[in-house]
Amino acid sequence: MASIFSKIIAGEIPAYKIAENEKHIAFLDAFPIVKGHTLVVPKKESDKIFELSQEEYSELMNYTYKIAQAIGKALPCLRVGIAVQGLEVPHVHVHLIPMNSPQDMVFSNKIQLTPEEFTEIQNQIKSFL
Amino acid sequence: MASIFSKIIAGEIPAYKIAENEKHIAFLDAFPIVKGHTLVVPKKESDKIFELSQEEYSELMNYTYKIAQAIGKALPCLRVGIAVQGLEVPHVHVHLIPMNSPQDMVFSNKIQLTPEEFTEIQNQIKSFL
Repeated sequence: MASIFSKIIAGEIPAYKIAENEKHIAFLDAFPIVKGHTLVVPKKESDKIFELSQEEYSELMNYTYKIAQAIGKALPCLRVGIAVQGLEVPHVHVHLIPMNSPQDMVFSNKIQLTPEEFTEIQNQIKSFL
Repeated sequence: MASIFSKIIAGEIPAYKIAENEKHIAFLDAFPIVKGHTLVVPKKESDKIFELSQEEYSELMNYTYKIAQAIGKALPCLRVGIAVQGLEVPHVHVHLIPMNSPQDMVFSNKIQLTPEEFTEIQNQIKSFL
């Protein structure tokens, strides 16, 4: 069965898309833990990041770097954090998290955003790409 | 003032070292959240990962890939997670965390290990490098 991320990639499920290229897509996490919480996902469906080939991994992390630069400029934060867990959705995804305290990477701390807030954050980040 | 990681790199503070090359070092986190919790650190002292040049970042993440492969083989886990926060020590460091549940990336959940346990884990990981 296609992962929820594959459905986003295929356009079957909507998402607040930030950017994409041939091999990757970045969009706002639908269940954010802070404003600007973004996922960077390889379009090819693989379960575990360290089962990617070194080349696939390197391409993903380099694409992540570009997205993180834009997030860091778009949102007020001390730094942009990275997390890769992947125990919930079996499709590799890198979390980028604008952080002001260690509490900002606690995944049980979800925030609620309106569609207008999602769209505003999406446009802020895209304006720096 | 040199960071605690620079003191480890200089050999002024002991650590359970896993591997090093010219530009990077990997050692067990002295305050682990799970067994096998490892830090990968560039020897050049920089505060924020996304202030590294793309080349420095790419080299760090590729070195991290090699260490993660060994951790995944050495320790029983569903997958090896990645976290970069950096709000406590202002010297870039990538956490590699053998994970069996999302709770394994909660940084407030420290575990206690004896020196013998640290040494055993160190040797297990090194045996796969």
